[in-house]
Amino acid sequence: MPGKFITFEGPEGSGKSTQIQLLVEKLEQQGIRATCSREPGGTATGEQIRNLLQHDAAGEPLADRAELLLFTASRAQLMDRVILPILDTGDWVVCDRFIDSTMAYQGYARGMDIATLDAINAFAIYDKKPDLTILLDLDIEVGFQRLEKRYAGSGESHDRFELEARDFHRRVRDGYQRLAEREDERFCVIDANLPISEVASEVWNAVKGALL
Amino acid sequence: MPGKFITFEGPEGSGKSTQIQLLVEKLEQQGIRATCSREPGGTATGEQIRNLLQHDAAGEPLADRAELLLFTASRAQLMDRVILPILDTGDWVVCDRFIDSTMAYQGYARGMDIATLDAINAFAIYDKKPDLTILLDLDIEVGFQRLEKRYAGSGESHDRFELEARDFHRRVRDGYQRLAEREDERFCVIDANLPISEVASEVWNAVKGALL
Repeated sequence: MPGKFITFEGPEGSGKSTQIQLLVEKLEQQGIRATCSREPGGTATGEQIRNLLQHDAAGEPLADRAELLLFTASRAQLMDRVILPILDTGDWVVCDRFIDSTMAYQGYARGMDIATLDAINAFAIYDKKPDLTILLDLDIEVGFQRLEKRYAGSGESHDRFELEARDFHRRVRDGYQRLAEREDERFCVIDANLPISEVASEVWNAVKGALL
Repeated sequence: MPGKFITFEGPEGSGKSTQIQLLVEKLEQQGIRATCSREPGGTATGEQIRNLLQHDAAGEPLADRAELLLFTASRAQLMDRVILPILDTGDWVVCDRFIDSTMAYQGYARGMDIATLDAINAFAIYDKKPDLTILLDLDIEVGFQRLEKRYAGSGESHDRFELEARDFHRRVRDGYQRLAEREDERFCVIDANLPISEVASEVWNAVKGALL
């Protein structure tokens, strides 16, 4: 039997990485091997693309449509080289961001045509959608406060997306909510304002209910 | 008045670069400023993508769909940063390979879905097609002989596409011919077996007839 494919979506600061780690531990306690991946990146090609995307590495601004196509190129490579082969072995894959990030950030927030993005996404993922998508929903002001804390004194810098205006992030959040309504069988929306352990227990309930 | 946009298509060895140079000189004699560009590449981002595409720079094989999306990402950047701004000034642009390479190589030769590639191409070029596309048509054996000559003793190596089998290049040629039939108003097909000066004079007749 092929493994299950779970994706986590939500803004920066919503706790995706922490929740993914906790979920993978929990799955392993149940004897299920799960591999984590991230987008963009997750392959040698994808990591080079990630670098181009996040810091204008080529020294020129990226056109919106080039940005979109680079994200989906990284995604196609990840599907072909990593995700589909792992699922074939029966192991599970948990991915930090996937097709819905494209729809929320480039589609709903930047205003690109939703039907075109759906078609490009379907092409990039070889028509294999996640079995379950966990959306960690967070008030945008709370997200910003968490990010400020993370960066304070860390020497890390904000990436291109984090520097967008509040209004952009509001559109991202609204977009995510519309995606969750559009495919309510695939999505599970969880309030990321709750304490980490409570979010983790809701994630686990969703996984158990949908996939075990 | 916006400038005109001309693309050259055809296999390696068909003489695209030579003909582009000759055309640009001819245009400049008529007082028309023309900029040459090439695909993939033509921008700082595009040149980095070109490197990833041509020699598996990331050290892993590229998935077919990732390859396609990288080509079109380079194309979107080139449109937004170079081609559309130049055409806006009234200057002309002559490009070595463009959307029809995607259709011939990835669509007809690799067998990807034509309608999907059309949609991705339309997105990447902001719906602005070339005003004229010159297809330099060449018997594939003649193309191979020309390439062998070019590489003999040069120290250059064949890229990924040149190493594909004869059958692949036959499908590329057939694909180009179908594209030319599908959009016979945009295409002009020229026999690249002819001597350079005769090809150049046919190119010039096509440009005069269609655009001047």
